[in-house]
Amino acid sequence: MSHVRSRFDKPADELVIKYTTSLPFDWRLYHEDVRGSIAHVRMLAKQGIIPSPDALEIMKGLLEIEIEIGEGKFEFKPEMEDIHMAIEARLKEKIGEAAGRLHTARSRNDQVATDLRLYMKDVIVWTLESVKSLQTAFVELAEKNIDVVLPGYTHLQPAQPILLAHHYLAYFEMLQRDRDRFTDCLKRTDILPLGSGALAGVSYNIDRSFVAKELGFSTISRNSLDAVSDRDFVIEYLSAASLTMMHLSRLSEEMVIWSGAEFGFIEIDDAYATGSSIMPQKKNPDVAELCRGKTGRVYGHLMGLLTTLKGLPLAYNRDLQEDKEALFDAADTLLMSLKVVAGMVQTVKVRPEKMLKSVDRSYLLATDLADYLVKKGETFRNAHGIIGRLVSHGIKEGKTFPELPLDEYRRFSPLFDQDVFEITVATSIDSRNNPGGTARNRVESALVEAKATLAGS
Amino acid sequence: MSHVRSRFDKPADELVIKYTTSLPFDWRLYHEDVRGSIAHVRMLAKQGIIPSPDALEIMKGLLEIEIEIGEGKFEFKPEMEDIHMAIEARLKEKIGEAAGRLHTARSRNDQVATDLRLYMKDVIVWTLESVKSLQTAFVELAEKNIDVVLPGYTHLQPAQPILLAHHYLAYFEMLQRDRDRFTDCLKRTDILPLGSGALAGVSYNIDRSFVAKELGFSTISRNSLDAVSDRDFVIEYLSAASLTMMHLSRLSEEMVIWSGAEFGFIEIDDAYATGSSIMPQKKNPDVAELCRGKTGRVYGHLMGLLTTLKGLPLAYNRDLQEDKEALFDAADTLLMSLKVVAGMVQTVKVRPEKMLKSVDRSYLLATDLADYLVKKGETFRNAHGIIGRLVSHGIKEGKTFPELPLDEYRRFSPLFDQDVFEITVATSIDSRNNPGGTARNRVESALVEAKATLAGS
Amino acid sequence: MSHVRSRFDKPADELVIKYTTSLPFDWRLYHEDVRGSIAHVRMLAKQGIIPSPDALEIMKGLLEIEIEIGEGKFEFKPEMEDIHMAIEARLKEKIGEAAGRLHTARSRNDQVATDLRLYMKDVIVWTLESVKSLQTAFVELAEKNIDVVLPGYTHLQPAQPILLAHHYLAYFEMLQRDRDRFTDCLKRTDILPLGSGALAGVSYNIDRSFVAKELGFSTISRNSLDAVSDRDFVIEYLSAASLTMMHLSRLSEEMVIWSGAEFGFIEIDDAYATGSSIMPQKKNPDVAELCRGKTGRVYGHLMGLLTTLKGLPLAYNRDLQEDKEALFDAADTLLMSLKVVAGMVQTVKVRPEKMLKSVDRSYLLATDLADYLVKKGETFRNAHGIIGRLVSHGIKEGKTFPELPLDEYRRFSPLFDQDVFEITVATSIDSRNNPGGTARNRVESALVEAKATLAGS
Amino acid sequence: MSHVRSRFDKPADELVIKYTTSLPFDWRLYHEDVRGSIAHVRMLAKQGIIPSPDALEIMKGLLEIEIEIGEGKFEFKPEMEDIHMAIEARLKEKIGEAAGRLHTARSRNDQVATDLRLYMKDVIVWTLESVKSLQTAFVELAEKNIDVVLPGYTHLQPAQPILLAHHYLAYFEMLQRDRDRFTDCLKRTDILPLGSGALAGVSYNIDRSFVAKELGFSTISRNSLDAVSDRDFVIEYLSAASLTMMHLSRLSEEMVIWSGAEFGFIEIDDAYATGSSIMPQKKNPDVAELCRGKTGRVYGHLMGLLTTLKGLPLAYNRDLQEDKEALFDAADTLLMSLKVVAGMVQTVKVRPEKMLKSVDRSYLLATDLADYLVKKGETFRNAHGIIGRLVSHGIKEGKTFPELPLDEYRRFSPLFDQDVFEITVATSIDSRNNPGGTARNRVESALVEAKATLAGS
Repeated sequence: MSHVRSRFDKPADELVIKYTTSLPFDWRLYHEDVRGSIAHVRMLAKQGIIPSPDALEIMKGLLEIEIEIGEGKFEFKPEMEDIHMAIEARLKEKIGEAAGRLHTARSRNDQVATDLRLYMKDVIVWTLESVKSLQTAFVELAEKNIDVVLPGYTHLQPAQPILLAHHYLAYFEMLQRDRDRFTDCLKRTDILPLGSGALAGVSYNIDRSFVAKELGFSTISRNSLDAVSDRDFVIEYLSAASLTMMHLSRLSEEMVIWSGAEFGFIEIDDAYATGSSIMPQKKNPDVAELCRGKTGRVYGHLMGLLTTLKGLPLAYNRDLQEDKEALFDAADTLLMSLKVVAGMVQTVKVRPEKMLKSVDRSYLLATDLADYLVKKGETFRNAHGIIGRLVSHGIKEGKTFPELPLDEYRRFSPLFDQDVFEITVATSIDSRNNPGGTARNRVESALVEAKATLAGS
Repeated sequence: MSHVRSRFDKPADELVIKYTTSLPFDWRLYHEDVRGSIAHVRMLAKQGIIPSPDALEIMKGLLEIEIEIGEGKFEFKPEMEDIHMAIEARLKEKIGEAAGRLHTARSRNDQVATDLRLYMKDVIVWTLESVKSLQTAFVELAEKNIDVVLPGYTHLQPAQPILLAHHYLAYFEMLQRDRDRFTDCLKRTDILPLGSGALAGVSYNIDRSFVAKELGFSTISRNSLDAVSDRDFVIEYLSAASLTMMHLSRLSEEMVIWSGAEFGFIEIDDAYATGSSIMPQKKNPDVAELCRGKTGRVYGHLMGLLTTLKGLPLAYNRDLQEDKEALFDAADTLLMSLKVVAGMVQTVKVRPEKMLKSVDRSYLLATDLADYLVKKGETFRNAHGIIGRLVSHGIKEGKTFPELPLDEYRRFSPLFDQDVFEITVATSIDSRNNPGGTARNRVESALVEAKATLAGS
Repeated sequence: MSHVRSRFDKPADELVIKYTTSLPFDWRLYHEDVRGSIAHVRMLAKQGIIPSPDALEIMKGLLEIEIEIGEGKFEFKPEMEDIHMAIEARLKEKIGEAAGRLHTARSRNDQVATDLRLYMKDVIVWTLESVKSLQTAFVELAEKNIDVVLPGYTHLQPAQPILLAHHYLAYFEMLQRDRDRFTDCLKRTDILPLGSGALAGVSYNIDRSFVAKELGFSTISRNSLDAVSDRDFVIEYLSAASLTMMHLSRLSEEMVIWSGAEFGFIEIDDAYATGSSIMPQKKNPDVAELCRGKTGRVYGHLMGLLTTLKGLPLAYNRDLQEDKEALFDAADTLLMSLKVVAGMVQTVKVRPEKMLKSVDRSYLLATDLADYLVKKGETFRNAHGIIGRLVSHGIKEGKTFPELPLDEYRRFSPLFDQDVFEITVATSIDSRNNPGGTARNRVESALVEAKATLAGS
Repeated sequence: MSHVRSRFDKPADELVIKYTTSLPFDWRLYHEDVRGSIAHVRMLAKQGIIPSPDALEIMKGLLEIEIEIGEGKFEFKPEMEDIHMAIEARLKEKIGEAAGRLHTARSRNDQVATDLRLYMKDVIVWTLESVKSLQTAFVELAEKNIDVVLPGYTHLQPAQPILLAHHYLAYFEMLQRDRDRFTDCLKRTDILPLGSGALAGVSYNIDRSFVAKELGFSTISRNSLDAVSDRDFVIEYLSAASLTMMHLSRLSEEMVIWSGAEFGFIEIDDAYATGSSIMPQKKNPDVAELCRGKTGRVYGHLMGLLTTLKGLPLAYNRDLQEDKEALFDAADTLLMSLKVVAGMVQTVKVRPEKMLKSVDRSYLLATDLADYLVKKGETFRNAHGIIGRLVSHGIKEGKTFPELPLDEYRRFSPLFDQDVFEITVATSIDSRNNPGGTARNRVESALVEAKATLAGS
């Protein structure tokens, strides 16, 4: 019978043990639990709250247990409820009565919050690195493909010609916002709750700042009730992760569409594609599809934890145990998605000729022609109307802009002159010469800026 | 290299294998996969599509593999992609070339849909049984507590006295709707997709009805494209499961509130409660809290899969692989929650004296007093106003209804007479004597009806 | 001050009135409220609970109020809290004290549940009709395009040739499941809660079955507590609506992709497309995009209401007021989406030549070639491998299947013979000649069956 | 026919107009649209892109239109698609051809993104102020109730005595994190997208920084594709709003529970409560319930928009139009909830005697007794066990700690002495004397800090 049931007449029902135990997932916090306990015990000894020899025994025992777990030699018993109780029980087996001093001046409520924050700080750092790696990949791809022209789309309809590098850098920007969000989330995660006790603080002369320093926390929590019932930091991570997955889902959708036979803009590397069990010709963009699909999973975790926390009175409630699986799975999914997507985009074979063909056969220079008329004095709205009718005419005649003779242009506006034929895909792109535009020199500046951003963080 | 990659020049990247493999979770479908394959092979032989001796070899091999997996002797290799490929590869090891005939006239697309439907049919049956068990528990509790009076609440404010049995039977009704929904979901799950091939059907003279009969499906799918891309049945299960969890969360909330010191209406059995790591006096309703908390998890799976399916073009896309973990976890959570909650409510110790005390100290007979005036000719609205002012007066005087003298009643309406004191908790309850009301004979009728419902299904 | 505040010393705060009033949206229930009240009053008079002359006055007054509201002459005052109070207050203005008898033997709790169920029954019927209309459109389109061949996709990669009609009928099937779900939902909505009172039933000799019959409900609720706190029927509608929107989002995604320049499979009619403010050549599939986008909105309402209901103790809580806006907006969105999508698909111009071109340039007959070898004795797995290598060879040589000479085929398997060239798109399609397959006669049978289904419901 | 349909042969279908128009909700952006257009036109004139007299005409016209809309004199025609087109069309009516120059060098894509960011910047500022007001209310309440003792809860079971002020300050902390999140969100919203054109930038010599300065944006967007397809800022607001609503839902749940008859810790002011239509004695905490219920609505909007954005290819897609209603409703809900909840908590009547009674009758000093033994040399685990058995004994004997004689204590541990009776609620609270603890001097320090925080921002 668990040592926290001293006032009870009977042990927990077996199904209850299975239902309530968190060991099958919170064992992942064992390293953080040992770290947290060692810092706690060191402080207790320093403050004279427990005898130093006991503290040494405890610390030694904990380090041994950490190794046991790391080496797979630790027996996880469900009736131990959670990783914290499992470690304390094992400690008692190893060092006897002194183990009973470990839990002095703390509660599982502040302990688990501490472990989870320690864990999440690492997760955020890994996330930041993985996002940055993908950003780096996009910068490299943009540099490598600086000459490639792509039909830019709105509504999945060809809209205006752009540089592929410009397109890649759009993802750089999204990911930069993602990094900013994870960095902000880190600020609010990097706070030590230990010392909050069950909910009210503890009645010993503890030194919270010492523990914070030992564990690398920047600061300590300011209200004990809040500290044990706060899971905002997990939800904030899940929100930021949802946005990142959303960005990856947009990229994945493009990879799927672009790699299809009709577009043919890219070919996904064999190492990132899979075959069909029945159709020998198939080469499927499964990585992109799965990444798109897994977006739902991360959203689901966000929604699940938000729901769990809705309407809970203060302070700790057991419902909060649901925070961990959601976090673990979301973080695993995000981290692996970032890595595998980076590999996929880096190995994609770009087909510039297919992109260019698509640029040429559409009326992608229509806006440029309207702007041409505006620059000759027409109002934009009239110019828009004129070119609209010209396009309609072209479609009926089966002719693209360069194939229409000047007199046909002139039927729609007398402002057209021979120089209309000077408008090309190249001039179109280079005319978007404002900050953020797709003109080559602007894209090159953006690349310089992007590299500076990566270097600076 | 997987045998579906014959047109590829290189194997899948290792990270890709890890990202895309479904073996870590879809091994749970091994029994269904073997069943499905055996029925398929039997049909292929019957139709003369593959030689009978090969069919026999295949079936024998598959049965052996099923045993190997059941006994934990099967080696799951991630590069095998999924349980279907893993089993086929092992079959080839065991019986050689003949194994290559197993996948004739089918695709993984219709195979996985078949396995999943087979699995879900069982899950639904288990769910129906578990919901019914909890209903049975409520019926028994209602019978056992037929004399217990509870303050009925609206807005968590005492409203009118009711029978505890009536309250329990409210949950019976919710669960009955849950069963109806799962039964409806079963209808739409009980359809064989095998024979749909990759998306277009197959080019062999197969006998789909034979396979359906072998596997116990009531009917076969009507459109091959739809059959391989449909996951409605999983989402419908998740929707129904979300509603059931919602019902359990409402019950759990009540268990938490009722077992607290201030209410004290019930005591949760030691076997269903847990202690505190730091506060020795605590007895926490963790099962109820966790059940309430896990509601979020099931909602999350629903939302996740809905998101995953949004905007997918026909037919099969790899995104669909995300269906399984959501389903498995939701079903596990629901089934265990139903069982553990049934155990909890059955062992709860009811404190009728606490409930009655709460009934007495509130003005729970106010509606009855208003109705009293109505029956003497007052309009309901006026009666409502009169009693409202009477309550206000009582609160100021610190007197409950029975403590107010008749002349104080009469100050508010001349219609009051001595017989106003005949209104009691007992008469209040028994006056709700309409179908669905809390009058004892109505509750007893409802119990008879509930038992008939349970007996009939 | 509202007439339900008789025990209060002061009126509600103005902001509170604004925050809590439901009039700005529940006025939509005015017709149901009047209908419900009239049936209630008729029953009260029949049972002798209120005087017949008063009942007549009340009914007359209510009918006049209904007309006032319908003609926009009714003044909605927020302090009236909701449509029920607003109507009752107006009734009092019109007929005086007798109005006070209307609320005899009922509560707002059972009243609002009744109104909402009346409303939802209509909504479900409209939904069923709208879904059926879209099904009818698909059947007509399938018939009209029975000769059109489409590349069938998996993973958005061309997979096997199919009939466009077969593709359309896949949507017919999805929508048929949708109808089945709404029909099931209707069963659980078609239950009269009136007579449940606030939570415990009422203390008058009412006739619930009479009211049910008057209002067209098939049955009456069985437990008063459950009846006033149950919103399962709304959530079930939102779940079914989410699935239907999901289906429409898949269709919309295809419309967007197919209408793009690279695919060019369809052209969306001018009446269903919009232009660009700046790019005169653009023709955007906005209807399809918005429908896809609005899927999120309906999911959101489902998730919102599930969250709202999580953890609510019995019986009525004010949180339940949140049910209406979610329902109204989801139903409006779904009904309009169904209509506008039906219009869009019916007016789409199909480009069979573009579809066929895409069929021809891909290796869509690969499965057929593998099946060819199987029928000559090869195992399917070997055949799959042989054709995989043949495709790989073809890609390198830049040749499609018909362009490869027989001796090149024979390099991969000696089983190839002259008859391999008899495999064509047409034979491929017609070989999928099993129930649910894309062979023309199967599709024609499916059409017959579909029309029978439509005729029968 | 809208002036963007020049290449089309027919107008949009009427149902399509109704389905696609955003005027019924995006009219709320009219002020931002006018502001944005004026800054744009001023820049166009400054750069010599359009003639100054035309610019003046346009600006004058726009200001008049803004007044027309403000005064309700503007006719909104659905066929105008959106507020941007509606204003431009009206401008043409007013000033003629010159109006056609307004849309030079911009697209609706960058225009709508600009309007929305302008709007959201204001919304965030209002949100920050409203959160701060609620924080201020909590600080005042904490000061006012500094002497009130509350039973602190975990698992809704009385755990340890705390100061009510400490409890209030827990909410201060949650709200402080909320403010931090909205502030972070503001950084990422405060970026000008105008100048990004449809997706690629514009081909005029514009001055984006000038426009940014005119409109009060801190910086300009760095990538045109990203700028027009980014809605992260809306989702981030919805995420932060969901967390704030979650915090309010926890508070609301407590208000509901505390105001009930069994707890009786607080009485909600009449102005913030509502009555029952049938039960005259009822006083319902509807504001708290509705706030708790509306949490679902805000979560739903978050989930809806996340779903909408999932899998959208770059750049602008019409699906994005769904961003506005979600944002408007979430912001309206959050702002009003913050205000009305602030009013509710400020007017609540606290019942310290009820709180104290609950403290006394529970074994809330159990942890203190365990700590007492620890300080006398016992290990914490043993002490925990001893007190657990002592509590169990007390419950059986029906005695609280002060009622047990010393010799009964000693039966459980010889370390107990007369000084055990010096442990009181007061000493318990004051012993939690660490940063973040509930000791009075710590709470007073926290109050000072809180006030400094409020003063500083």
